[in-house]
Amino acid sequence: MKAKETAVIMIEFQNEFCKHGGKLYDGVKSEMERQNTLAHAVKLQQEARQRGCLIVMTPFVFDVEYAKFWKPEGIVGIAAAAGAFRRGDWGTEIIDELKPAPDDAIVHGKATLCGFNGSNLDMILKSAGIRNCILCGFLTNVCVEATARTAYDRGYRVIVAKDACAAGSREQQEYPEKYIFPLLGKVLTVDEILAQIESAGSESLATAA
Amino acid sequence: MKAKETAVIMIEFQNEFCKHGGKLYDGVKSEMERQNTLAHAVKLQQEARQRGCLIVMTPFVFDVEYAKFWKPEGIVGIAAAAGAFRRGDWGTEIIDELKPAPDDAIVHGKATLCGFNGSNLDMILKSAGIRNCILCGFLTNVCVEATARTAYDRGYRVIVAKDACAAGSREQQEYPEKYIFPLLGKVLTVDEILAQIESAGSESLATAA
Amino acid sequence: MKAKETAVIMIEFQNEFCKHGGKLYDGVKSEMERQNTLAHAVKLQQEARQRGCLIVMTPFVFDVEYAKFWKPEGIVGIAAAAGAFRRGDWGTEIIDELKPAPDDAIVHGKATLCGFNGSNLDMILKSAGIRNCILCGFLTNVCVEATARTAYDRGYRVIVAKDACAAGSREQQEYPEKYIFPLLGKVLTVDEILAQIESAGSESLATAA
Amino acid sequence: MKAKETAVIMIEFQNEFCKHGGKLYDGVKSEMERQNTLAHAVKLQQEARQRGCLIVMTPFVFDVEYAKFWKPEGIVGIAAAAGAFRRGDWGTEIIDELKPAPDDAIVHGKATLCGFNGSNLDMILKSAGIRNCILCGFLTNVCVEATARTAYDRGYRVIVAKDACAAGSREQQEYPEKYIFPLLGKVLTVDEILAQIESAGSESLATAA
Repeated sequence: MKAKETAVIMIEFQNEFCKHGGKLYDGVKSEMERQNTLAHAVKLQQEARQRGCLIVMTPFVFDVEYAKFWKPEGIVGIAAAAGAFRRGDWGTEIIDELKPAPDDAIVHGKATLCGFNGSNLDMILKSAGIRNCILCGFLTNVCVEATARTAYDRGYRVIVAKDACAAGSREQQEYPEKYIFPLLGKVLTVDEILAQIESAGSESLATAA
Repeated sequence: MKAKETAVIMIEFQNEFCKHGGKLYDGVKSEMERQNTLAHAVKLQQEARQRGCLIVMTPFVFDVEYAKFWKPEGIVGIAAAAGAFRRGDWGTEIIDELKPAPDDAIVHGKATLCGFNGSNLDMILKSAGIRNCILCGFLTNVCVEATARTAYDRGYRVIVAKDACAAGSREQQEYPEKYIFPLLGKVLTVDEILAQIESAGSESLATAA
Repeated sequence: MKAKETAVIMIEFQNEFCKHGGKLYDGVKSEMERQNTLAHAVKLQQEARQRGCLIVMTPFVFDVEYAKFWKPEGIVGIAAAAGAFRRGDWGTEIIDELKPAPDDAIVHGKATLCGFNGSNLDMILKSAGIRNCILCGFLTNVCVEATARTAYDRGYRVIVAKDACAAGSREQQEYPEKYIFPLLGKVLTVDEILAQIESAGSESLATAA
Repeated sequence: MKAKETAVIMIEFQNEFCKHGGKLYDGVKSEMERQNTLAHAVKLQQEARQRGCLIVMTPFVFDVEYAKFWKPEGIVGIAAAAGAFRRGDWGTEIIDELKPAPDDAIVHGKATLCGFNGSNLDMILKSAGIRNCILCGFLTNVCVEATARTAYDRGYRVIVAKDACAAGSREQQEYPEKYIFPLLGKVLTVDEILAQIESAGSESLATAA
């Protein structure tokens, strides 16, 4: 994978999921520990950024006024009712360890499961000439999987960084690793992925434009 | 659910999956028998149509010329390489038991996992004023789930007709029934769904417009 | 048009266009005065809201960090280079006369010409059961027209409130009124539109659900 | 422009528009002659293909069964009522002079004004790694402009091949040339465009992968 054609799409690394006091922390805490999710995510973000990949932070942000007429069923409705991911709240902030650098992109508009839906993610990827999407974050089988499915359908190459994800249980982590992600592309560890990224360095000398 | 706001989205009820000789038949045969999928699908199509729901047949069609420059990874690539779902082939035809009636809609453009991607499905649903999507077909955890996830994200109410679906194994049928569909909406049997559809008849007298 | 199926999509009624000191004010000032755009927009917003239509404020917001890797050509690039519509700036605020009421919707993500692109507009409209889109704002032949074209293509009924719009010149106002909007739907004055909206009142008594 | 990143999107070069006996021929005949549209389109298709650009034929196809529940207003409704562009009809065929070659792509699903809407156009472009869209065809100010606007909004570079287009009148040809296309990208003649396409040849030796 050429770095300049590769994006790392980091989904919902927000206090709500990742930190004590976050409204959804209890649900993923044990899987996050088992997988060492945050350390792997930090490594992926830093090394991929250094090699010239586009880092795309993809937070979930729930606008309060939006909720007035929008009464979602299912999990988004539950999250809304719980007051999770409200714009401006501490829980909605991206965690300190993964704060965006000046050249990272931040997706706006993710308020449902798939990161492409109602957001500028596709425009960001296309504008930047991205062909490979490395995906990680929360929940493995919900938002990460939804975004991976759409990325696949839209013609991107999909690589799931499995040890930079977490689900609500080991079963929900392993089911998509086994049955879904291999239908879409690759499912690899952060170390395996980093070994496949070709730095933009030498090439960028040749194609300076 | 009001019938006139409700669509039954029937995914890939084609010879390729449903009939002896179809290229994907062996993979779903046992689950299709265990669930009695086809009989439930026929009942759902006929009774929902009679009450005024929109029937939306959603076949997968792979255009041969399309494949010349499009080299998908994963499952679509495998299906393409196997020659499945080619336009004009017997395997690509909708099965006789579910042949569309004159007022049914047929989706064009489904050539990836999600029925909305690159197709006219959303335009059909919106033009017809649909708010409730009843989904069934093949494979429960691949194309049916992909379409259900997108329908949910786009603001439709999602109801999965679980006994009119089939997956590659019982585990792959039961996992989304347990962990994914309840996040999106309801997962019910055909009989339970039919009991909740309010016929368009009496109401249409009152709101004749 | 039934009020509860009707949205008024108000495009870019922001200080940048509408107020002395706004970066794009000089370009639309004379047409805005000729048409009395703001007074018509206020009337449309207030009366449509009162009858039960959904008011959808659709501002353009340019995220500074977004611009780092996104180098648009054409008009969006010019607006970006000029520092227009930056998130948090005075110019980006919706004008005081049209400040959203608690039940209005505010679109997030409009950063190109069409209000549907990369935004939550379609999700808002679909979630609210909207079938009729009344469009107004700036510029008649650029963002209003782009949004009207997409609304049409996606199956919404399109009504352009011509005297609540403004373009850069009379020619650019009258060309789409004559040649484009009639291909999509209707082009009417605010008064003509209000005369066609059927209040949600009496009906809502009957369908209280 | 590098050839391998460039697509020529040829919109509605079908008998319906281009040939005596086509249902829409009379409306564009004089502009097509004035511009010498077909000769320019043939030159563009042949030379761009030879240099390694992706040729994307984008016909409008109206499915008869689709029309049963879809009652479009405006121009698509008029075309439907007139029986234009029906699947399988002579009028719907791509003209002989521009018949697709084996490596060209053919868009499926265009049944409204914008070529991206409800079609596989975006998937084709993304799968092929396209960044530059050269657009031509019918009508300059309707479907060509709609497709150009969306291409722009989605992050593609837009080049309109003005002398390979035709509109219903000279005014409708010149208005978007003057006021709209320059907001999106470039508007050039076929000869000017061909002078800017960098053949894939020498480069492909270096990047054989």
